[in-house]
Amino acid sequence: MNIREITVTPVAFRDPPLLNAAGVHEPWALRTIVEVVTDEGLSGLGETYGDLAHLEKVRTAAKALIGLDVHAQNEIYSRVAALVGDVVSDLHGLTGAATKEKSVDRVYSPFEVACLDIRGKALGRPVSDLLGGAVREAVPYSAYLFYKWAGHPGEADDRFGAALDPEGIVAQARLLIEEYGFRSIKLKGGVFEPSQEVDAILALREAFPSHPLRLDPNAVWSVETSLEVARALEGTLEYLEDPTAGIEDMAAVAARAPMPLATNMCVVTFEHLPPAIRQGAIGVLLSDHHYWGGLERSVQLARLCETFGISLSMHSNSHLGISLAAMTHLAAAVPNVATACDTHTPWQDGQDVVAPGALRFVDGAVPVPKGPGLGVELDRDALAVMHEQYLTCGFTARDDTSYMRRFNPSFTNTRPRW
Amino acid sequence: MNIREITVTPVAFRDPPLLNAAGVHEPWALRTIVEVVTDEGLSGLGETYGDLAHLEKVRTAAKALIGLDVHAQNEIYSRVAALVGDVVSDLHGLTGAATKEKSVDRVYSPFEVACLDIRGKALGRPVSDLLGGAVREAVPYSAYLFYKWAGHPGEADDRFGAALDPEGIVAQARLLIEEYGFRSIKLKGGVFEPSQEVDAILALREAFPSHPLRLDPNAVWSVETSLEVARALEGTLEYLEDPTAGIEDMAAVAARAPMPLATNMCVVTFEHLPPAIRQGAIGVLLSDHHYWGGLERSVQLARLCETFGISLSMHSNSHLGISLAAMTHLAAAVPNVATACDTHTPWQDGQDVVAPGALRFVDGAVPVPKGPGLGVELDRDALAVMHEQYLTCGFTARDDTSYMRRFNPSFTNTRPRW
Repeated sequence: MNIREITVTPVAFRDPPLLNAAGVHEPWALRTIVEVVTDEGLSGLGETYGDLAHLEKVRTAAKALIGLDVHAQNEIYSRVAALVGDVVSDLHGLTGAATKEKSVDRVYSPFEVACLDIRGKALGRPVSDLLGGAVREAVPYSAYLFYKWAGHPGEADDRFGAALDPEGIVAQARLLIEEYGFRSIKLKGGVFEPSQEVDAILALREAFPSHPLRLDPNAVWSVETSLEVARALEGTLEYLEDPTAGIEDMAAVAARAPMPLATNMCVVTFEHLPPAIRQGAIGVLLSDHHYWGGLERSVQLARLCETFGISLSMHSNSHLGISLAAMTHLAAAVPNVATACDTHTPWQDGQDVVAPGALRFVDGAVPVPKGPGLGVELDRDALAVMHEQYLTCGFTARDDTSYMRRFNPSFTNTRPRW
Repeated sequence: MNIREITVTPVAFRDPPLLNAAGVHEPWALRTIVEVVTDEGLSGLGETYGDLAHLEKVRTAAKALIGLDVHAQNEIYSRVAALVGDVVSDLHGLTGAATKEKSVDRVYSPFEVACLDIRGKALGRPVSDLLGGAVREAVPYSAYLFYKWAGHPGEADDRFGAALDPEGIVAQARLLIEEYGFRSIKLKGGVFEPSQEVDAILALREAFPSHPLRLDPNAVWSVETSLEVARALEGTLEYLEDPTAGIEDMAAVAARAPMPLATNMCVVTFEHLPPAIRQGAIGVLLSDHHYWGGLERSVQLARLCETFGISLSMHSNSHLGISLAAMTHLAAAVPNVATACDTHTPWQDGQDVVAPGALRFVDGAVPVPKGPGLGVELDRDALAVMHEQYLTCGFTARDDTSYMRRFNPSFTNTRPRW
């Protein structure tokens, strides 16, 4: 089962003006679709970031993998590692520090997922069966709430409308929960004064008394502010996600916060785990196969977390259906994913590169696709449209901060801001 | 690929009178052979311990797994865990403390290996391809030297002869290296005064100037004695294995010893890793898929060890070819197995349940079998003979101490002895 061909296709899709600590989502979100084909004609799909610096690494890696067997994951990883010579950073910084290891893991990931897709198809089994077997029929996701503008400046309002205060956030939660059935709620914070975000969480608690709640300000608070928020939300939050930046400051908050701290920013590669564990910085790791080196390494990460008593959930960036399928197979096969995972899927609002039907939400959870491999197929017409959008949209790298500064020139991505 | 049938067959084979801290090997070594057959007629092999208490758990588990898919490893593990209600201990204590987790992992392991064998056969790929792909063509093993009697009391001498002093050990090393080509040497110590064992290592160094050397007294020394030996062998040992018992005392030795400490006794399940890492007790983990819950969990263990800067090698008890094949696939697919693995294979001296030809030693290393699955097939005639030997040999549990006491009634399995 040798790799005969790899096609790398950048795509762009519409994204609402979602606010975060780094700024605001641009009108187009970028992703890269990887299609691996073997000499038997089996094909597999992977999905990764669309930023140009990363895309170029993925393209370079794709050429270096031709001829390798889809099972030769150690060799594939080594070849990718040999090619990714430098650190590839994100402009937004929302997934923590860039490191050499993380840069390699990010480039490797879509190829690994595509190889697993092929291996599943060759066997006639879902990818979850290659990861230990599904322990749940469906994977619960959270309602991922964002402060947002009513629409992109100069454009018509989108159907989600504005959410700029606690009432707007509660209304947004009602909409997403009505449409998707979510049973957990996450609020992306770090946008307004912490006291307003505390009020938003308290309003959500009142409106949804039994939904677990989480707040994620993307490390934009000081240790002191983090502790003030943590105390104000004692008994209300399932966990507090990345209140402050860095392992040391997270540990300082964790030592006195009444709820567990979660992260997808201060622990983003295996090399961060020893200091974070030594310092007791985190109680929940939000894993993400896109930068933890694919699905099998994420399973290994899960075992490590279980060993050290760290709970596991899952982080999300803007993504399409290939990633949602991969995340669902992974979370289905890892027993210690104990809480609802994050997904941006509602914000893509039906735009996708995969053919409809394979993925759906039932009571806030995605039933694990039962077809071979990932269980999703490319919609080639949709892919062509989204690739054309990529070519014409004028964006080549996500930059929430610059986009915000077009409308608010004094905005800076300062940490801590509060 | 559902499990239709599982056959569990205890076997016995001749074992020389190898000395260790617990006593001396009995004339018969026991193992259990597990054969899993799917409803398509694919069959897979696993091998585990033969002690009766463990054998009974394996038999009970086998019944509970009928009908499960060979990919459903999470479910298979859960069923085994639900059945293994208590802690199953070894009488010899040579693989460290028994715990509930370890008891489960030991029972689960042969089923996991057999399922991987089947999955490899279904794909037409070697098991190493299911573990990330082989990164080496052959897996180096060490010459595993033992102090030994010339033969079992009352029987003729065996062909290996006596090894009761440094000269005997060097002669034994020459024999094993001549026959197998080993390029590393491990001496099982804990038998004589530490000073004699130090002399044996120094004699080996003189006879084999470039072979990495290791010494393993099975935790029979005090912290002080361990440090005396460590200082006497500074610059001579690749690592010192389990000089003393328990994580705390190992950490006390590790803090002052000039070489890394290795263990297969103080860290034997995932639950032991946090305290051992916190205390800096070990530099090398000798993994063993027989009690770490099979091959995939061993790969996960390897990632954890890499993350925390712990080197990896492999432990062995008396075993047959199914285990040697499994160990070889695993060590081939784990990049950070950095040193030669241990094997008792020379002491089985050609006795095996697998058909000849698939496994051989070339320059001390076993070429990774390239056939589907484990790449070994049962020799059913040999299995029948060995099972008959099990039924008639009179042994149902390994007990090196009682056997030693038959000839030396004052012998006790005391730790620390020195």
